[in-house]
This record gives sequence, structure tokens and C-alpha cells, in this order.
Amino acid sequence: MTINGNLLVAGSEKRGLNGEFQGVEAATGKLLPVSFGGASPQDVDQATSQAWEAFGSYRETGLETRAAFLESIAEGIEAIGDELVVRAMSETGLPRGRLEGERARTVGQLRLFAKEVRAGRFQELRFDAGDASRKPVAKPDLRLRNVPIGPVAVFGASNFPLAFSVAGGDTASALAAGCPVVVKAHSAHPGTSELVGRAVQRAVASAGLHPGTFSLLFDTGFEVGQRLVADSRIRAVGFTGSRRGGTALIEIASRRRQPIPVYAEMSSINPVIFFPGALKSRAADIASTFVASLVLGAGQFCTNPGLLLAVDGEELDTFVARAAELLPEVGPQAMLTPSIAKAYYDGVAKLERHPEVRAVASGKTGSEFEGAAALFETSADAFLAHHELQDEVFGAAGLVVRCKDLAQLENVLDELEGQLTIALHITDEDEAPARRLIPKLEMLAGRLLVNGFGTGVEVSPAMVHGGPYPATADGRSTSVGTLAIYRFLRPVSYQDFTVTLLPEALR
Amino acid sequence: MTINGNLLVAGSEKRGLNGEFQGVEAATGKLLPVSFGGASPQDVDQATSQAWEAFGSYRETGLETRAAFLESIAEGIEAIGDELVVRAMSETGLPRGRLEGERARTVGQLRLFAKEVRAGRFQELRFDAGDASRKPVAKPDLRLRNVPIGPVAVFGASNFPLAFSVAGGDTASALAAGCPVVVKAHSAHPGTSELVGRAVQRAVASAGLHPGTFSLLFDTGFEVGQRLVADSRIRAVGFTGSRRGGTALIEIASRRRQPIPVYAEMSSINPVIFFPGALKSRAADIASTFVASLVLGAGQFCTNPGLLLAVDGEELDTFVARAAELLPEVGPQAMLTPSIAKAYYDGVAKLERHPEVRAVASGKTGSEFEGAAALFETSADAFLAHHELQDEVFGAAGLVVRCKDLAQLENVLDELEGQLTIALHITDEDEAPARRLIPKLEMLAGRLLVNGFGTGVEVSPAMVHGGPYPATADGRSTSVGTLAIYRFLRPVSYQDFTVTLLPEALR
Repeated sequence: MTINGNLLVAGSEKRGLNGEFQGVEAATGKLLPVSFGGASPQDVDQATSQAWEAFGSYRETGLETRAAFLESIAEGIEAIGDELVVRAMSETGLPRGRLEGERARTVGQLRLFAKEVRAGRFQELRFDAGDASRKPVAKPDLRLRNVPIGPVAVFGASNFPLAFSVAGGDTASALAAGCPVVVKAHSAHPGTSELVGRAVQRAVASAGLHPGTFSLLFDTGFEVGQRLVADSRIRAVGFTGSRRGGTALIEIASRRRQPIPVYAEMSSINPVIFFPGALKSRAADIASTFVASLVLGAGQFCTNPGLLLAVDGEELDTFVARAAELLPEVGPQAMLTPSIAKAYYDGVAKLERHPEVRAVASGKTGSEFEGAAALFETSADAFLAHHELQDEVFGAAGLVVRCKDLAQLENVLDELEGQLTIALHITDEDEAPARRLIPKLEMLAGRLLVNGFGTGVEVSPAMVHGGPYPATADGRSTSVGTLAIYRFLRPVSYQDFTVTLLPEALR
Repeated sequence: MTINGNLLVAGSEKRGLNGEFQGVEAATGKLLPVSFGGASPQDVDQATSQAWEAFGSYRETGLETRAAFLESIAEGIEAIGDELVVRAMSETGLPRGRLEGERARTVGQLRLFAKEVRAGRFQELRFDAGDASRKPVAKPDLRLRNVPIGPVAVFGASNFPLAFSVAGGDTASALAAGCPVVVKAHSAHPGTSELVGRAVQRAVASAGLHPGTFSLLFDTGFEVGQRLVADSRIRAVGFTGSRRGGTALIEIASRRRQPIPVYAEMSSINPVIFFPGALKSRAADIASTFVASLVLGAGQFCTNPGLLLAVDGEELDTFVARAAELLPEVGPQAMLTPSIAKAYYDGVAKLERHPEVRAVASGKTGSEFEGAAALFETSADAFLAHHELQDEVFGAAGLVVRCKDLAQLENVLDELEGQLTIALHITDEDEAPARRLIPKLEMLAGRLLVNGFGTGVEVSPAMVHGGPYPATADGRSTSVGTLAIYRFLRPVSYQDFTVTLLPEALR
């Protein structure tokens, strides 16, 4: 398939003339062939005005049409074949197995939303029958349904070139809700983005939808993204990325004449709590599953286990010792971009220099583009005194916090910011103290898990991938799983409508 | 019952020592007996820390306990008897019939949420069975439920001393969700607030709930409200009031270390569209129902019909002429507060002075505390050129916009901000052009109604009282009807939990 670096705007393609950039081979930092043209303000305007125009008809598509459209995007992505995986491998440095899995997740996600659309439950139809004879006033006939919120701007995520980029979870759920999508491609994988974007564009055409239903824009900096969020025709934003990036977009959205929701998934260190019984019975085993989770994808998961909480003592020593044995065996892994690799090493260096932090072990080092896993430890006293130890280090870095007792561990929890996940490692004997903590943990995170790690996010109806700020900007939302569709819907009530005037679903 | 001006903080009462104020008789501007003491920062802190403590147990109350608690608040409000209506009449200037109706709505609302709690649907339980044999990775067991968001700050509304104040819709839905509530009483009806607050406080005690489940604070200015929204233990805000007040609270909430949702219902002029067929067949009748809606409660409804759109011509002349006959018969009505009356007359004066606006007619004038209804007209050209003509004039003022044709009427719609309601007056012959407009109207408002006016908000499952900004800060929410409970909930996913560790509802 073609990769020519063109913008895909509403059914056609054009060269972006607002600067240009090339993809970078993550493992080597070398430029990849093909240069991508940045979108001009006029290109952004064209994409959003076409999206707005498309909204008029796309929102009214029947459920079957919309479901089939989502499925045809999935088929189109599969049809790209190995070229997609190969290009994504070179752009992101992620291994083949991971990318093949991610592709399966991406198309599975599109098909899950197709199913959700067909089921139609997301419309949340409600009917209150009128009663003309009610005293003192007649009861009106009221009917309610969810309507799509309007065109959505989606920002591709560096760490999920397929599952959270051009046709990822945000796009799939927005399209499922009835919202056209304008994607700002992540500059870390422009070729991958273009390949997928072309598949979406073809699916739009073959479904006979308005071409403005989908556009894909490239950007040499931040201007395109900022313009998209400020554009009056954009009515919601899906973003997965850094806290700084997310808060900047939230700021722009809040200054609009009509502020809009920004669903930004930003920052999480995903605390893991090792209870005493669990450490006593299987500290070494836990250490090995922990190390596997820590280094998965070079640690570049939103749900990477970055903070480990346990009561100090021999059992924790055993855990730390075993992790310290295993980590030096871990090879270096290419990180997603040279700048992510640099930010990772900056974060690691900060921990190394921190007077209250001790380096436990690290993985094998490679080139400057490759991340070497690193494990640190500190005391709960120090953690509580140094708020910066909560900062996310994006990559395979973990920090063990040694607590005096469960009470101090609870104090640490009280100081934590919102999280995507919290994991508990327990045995039967830990159940009572664990149960006591659950209400607190529910307030801290969107997903709680037992005897596992948060990496590996199931795409299903009961999944929550979101959590209190700053894990996500809106802690009432999830960006993974079928509930994600509700981010792009709002309820409308129809009072005393004649039957012929009612939307079909409410007749 | 006692009205002594005390703060009701977590099961006890105390004199607020941070300044004092008295209620004002709305009809005369005279001070009413009893002075109310403002809450100090320490009082706010005590209320929120007690609310936080109460949250631990209140959130875990069984559905039956919580439902019965809501019902006992309703009974307690009824048990106050006529004293409540009499005090509210003098504080707000609203007539007996309206306040008796509002009391019925308030207790009905509490009972509706009790029913909703018993039904339990708001928990949105979801179950995804695990599958250990799935390849390439085992499928986890995932279960989901909604949990309450945490303590909620509720701001009493001036225009609904019962249904949107101390035990109104925000409080009822927050308590139903499992959230303790700290109310900031509106200074326009402090005695009414105290009476209802005491009923809630007694219901908390007799249900054996943690006393921090409810507190009521008075404020001589804005400090208490600002502190509440900034307080880390407050996790959401319910507010009905002015756009300036709402946006100030949103700003405070967004600057917190953990920003929180502010459900502010702020500003709406509730456009009414008279289609040509409807005017042709019954312009005079529509004029009389319009005038009745305009002047209801001195026009002090969020859903007051402030903007009337129609195609210019004889039929519209007939409507305007009939309204001009009726309005001078309308007597003056006490407004909620002297400052609301002043703001109303300032708004009316701005319209009177506007070079592009013509005064059509006005109601009888009374004292400076009483509002006289007023109707104005302008052209669509002028309306489009002068954005300030969209500003809400809170009270019984309406503006007719004469459009050249339906196309220009649509241009006017395109320039409108978000609204709570839009009403359409039609006959059979108007159905086609009306149907064409519906998608646009759905984007503009939370409730659309046919051949009626938005005043009179049914409290029921299919009601939406909310709309795109600035009608509400969060256009995906409603503050009336059972869906209002979702504002105070967020989903949590439980992965691979042992049965005994699971919340009961998910076992």
C-alpha cells in the first residue's frame, strides 16, 4: 500500500504544506523514507467543516449501517497485511508479537463496538407516558434518547500505534456513537497512521458515508492539535498521552466560547500492594511476574506497575532480592521515540540522584534509544515527604516503598493522586486487611485487581480504563471497553412530540 | 419549629460567627426576624471533614436503608407543615399555590429517588466471566459497578427555595448515589433553608447514619461557597444560578490539585419557534398561553420563554398584537430578592435603550421589588448583529425576533448558545420544516417540546433538564429526573477478585 505522507482530508488526499517531518526508526534514531506534510490552518478548517457537514447525515445512519461500517474498517486494517506490522515495528521499536496482538485488539475493538451499536442499548431509550387527566396539571409525554455529541478530535497515542491511534478505542467509540472523527496522527508513527487512515477512508467510501466522517492530519508541532481543540465544530476530544499535553488541551477546551469535554488519559503509576501473607508465601514468584509486567513493551504502558507498596521486613527483602536477580537479565528494549527514551533516562537519573532513594537493580543497557529497566526503593517516610516521587517515569522503572506497617501503607495511599489501576497481592490471611482498604482504593482508581498486574487491558463491557484525575481528566469515564461510547453521547428529551416528528427509535 | 439562624453541622448546631445577615421579605424589602450567622473557615472544614468521614459508611448503606432515609426526609419536610410555606412565601415573594406545588415536587422527587435506589439500576452492574483457557492469554474475571463520587457541595438556588435548595434535586440525587452533602444555603431564603435543613438532620439521626452525611452552612458573601468548592474532600458540585456565579465556581474547581465536576445550571433563554402554520391557525391562542408562561412565577424560571422566533408577517403581527393586549392586564409580582428585581429592571432598561429593539407592551408596574412583565421585538438582522441580545434577562421579559423567512430563522438558531429547552409550535403543515430542524435543535438543547412552553419541568425518568454550555456546564448531564443520579457516580472495575473480597452487589 501507498505511504506518501499526504493528509487524508474528507475523502481526498493532499500534500500538507505546513512544514514536513519524517518517521524515525525507533531502534536506531535513523530517519525513515517518506516525508509527511504538516496540515495548515486551512487544512484543519477543511477537515472540521467537512466533519460538521458529515455529522448531519452520519448521526442519522441506521444502527446496522454504522455497525457494518465499523466492521469494514476492521477488515480493511487486516487487509493491509504484514506491511502494517513491519512499518509499525520500525516506527515504534515494538516487537512483532506485541504489534500483531495489538492489531488483533484493534480490530476486535472495532467489532465489539459494532456489536454494541447493533444492540442499541447505548441509546438509553426511555419512555414516560403522558396522562392528560392528571391533576393539577396534565402529565406530558416524555421520551428520551442519547444523541451523539458532535465531531470528535482524536489524538493518536505514541504507545499504542494501532489500538489507541487512528482507528483505536477513541475513534471506534466515537464513530460508534455517531460522531465523525478528525485524527491528529502521532508523529512517532506517521506511516502506520497513514496506512490505517487509508483503510478508514476506504471504509467510509465503500459504506457510502459522507467523506467528512473521517480525516487524518499530520502536524510538525502542536499547532494542528491546538487548533482542533479550539475549533467550534469539534465537540469532544479523545487523548492519551502526557500530563503536560493533556492539561494544555484541557486549558484550550475550557477557554472556548462553548467549552467541551477533553477525555485525556494522562498519568498513572499504578500502585501494587503486596500484603504480608502474599509476600510470606510467594515473594519470589511475585517478583518474577512483577519483573515481567514491568518490562513488558519497555514499560511503555499506561498501566505499568511503577509503585510497589509493602510492609518492610524479611519477606519484602526476599521480593526485592529476587527482583534484583532477575532484572540484570533483562535486555534493553527500543523505546517508542528518541525523546521518550531521553525522558525515561532523565526520570531514572532523578531517582538515582535522589538522596532518599536507593537503586536496587537495573536491566542491561543498550543504545541511547533503548530503555534499560530500573528498580528503586525508598521508605514510606521519604515518599510521604517528597511529592515528586509520585511523578510518572514513563518506561520500565519501578519504585518500592517500604512501609513500617499497614497503617503507614494506608498513609501513603492517602497521599496518592488518582490512578488507572491498583493491584493487590494477597492470600487468604490478607483478606481482612485487604477488604478494609477496598473503599479507599475505589476512590483512587478505576480498576482494582487481585494477584495480577494492570498491564494487559481486556476490551470488554466490564472494563474501566480511566480513573480520578490525573489518571484521566474525567474520572467518570473509561477509554477502553464498551462504556467508552458514553463519552460521546448526551441525553435529549422529547416532550409531547407528534409521532411523525419523533426520531424513529422513539416512535 | 425553631428558626434560630444556626449552622447545622454534622448532627449538631452552632452559631456561625463569621458575620451575620437577615432574611428579607421579598415583597417589601423589609428585614425578617432572626439573624443568620455566617460559617467560618473552621466551620467549613468541620462540615467537609465530617462529610468525608461519613462517606466511609454512608456509601456502604444498603439500598433499602438509603431509600427509607430519602423517604423520611420527605416525611420530615411534610411534617413542618404550613410554617414552611409561610416562611418561604415571605422570603421569596412566591405565591402560596406555587410553593405548595413546589413542596409536592420536592417530596415527590425524594420519593422518586428512593424508588430509583431500591431498583438499583444506577449501580450499572456488569459481569464478564473469565476464561482461564483462552489463548494467547487467559481472560480475566471482570465485574463493574458504579460507586459514589464522594461528598458533594450543593448550592441552594434562589428561584426554587424547596425543589432546588437544601433538600432539592441536587441533594436528593447525591444522597441517592451514596454521597454525603454539604449545602450552602441561598441567602434569599435562609429561614426556609434552616427549616428544611433541620428536617434532613433529623432524618439522618433517626436513620442512624453518620451525622456528617449532611450539613447546612450560611454565608454572608461568597467565601463559604468558594471554600467548599476548593476543599479536597468535596468531589462534585451541584449549582443552579447565574452564569457569573457558575463560571466562578468552575474556575475554582479546575484549579484544584484534583479538579472536580461542577454541575452548574446557569443560563438559558429557551427559544420558542412559532411555525407559519401554527401562527396562521391560532396566533391569538398561542399568545395567551405564551403570556401565561412568560409571567409564571414572575418569569423566574430557568425555562422561562425569553426568545420568540417566527417569520415576519400578518400572523406574527396577530400574535404580537394579542400579547400586547394581554400583558397590560398582568399585575406586578414580587421578585425573589431586591437585587434580582434590580437586575431584571437593568436588563429591561438595556432592551428599552437598544436602538434596534422596540418595546411591544409591558405589565402593570408596582413597587421596586416587583417585576412588571415586558415584551420586546427586533429583527433577525439586528439579533444576528448584536450578540448581547442573547443575554438572559432573568424575569418575565421576552424578545420577539422577526425573521425574513425560515432560512433566516435557521441562521438565528445557528448563532444561539446552548439552551435548556426549545419549544416548537406547529400544525400538520409545519411538520416537514420542523422535522428538518430537529437535528439542529438536538444540538442546541436538552429538551425539545411541541406546542407547549418549557416552564413546568416534569420530574421523571425521561426528563432532561440540562443542555449544552452555558445552559449547563456539562451538557451530558441533567439536574432533574432520575438520570441526575449519574452525575455523582463513577464506574469501577474489579478484576479477578475473590468472592469474599467483592462488594456484595457483585458477588
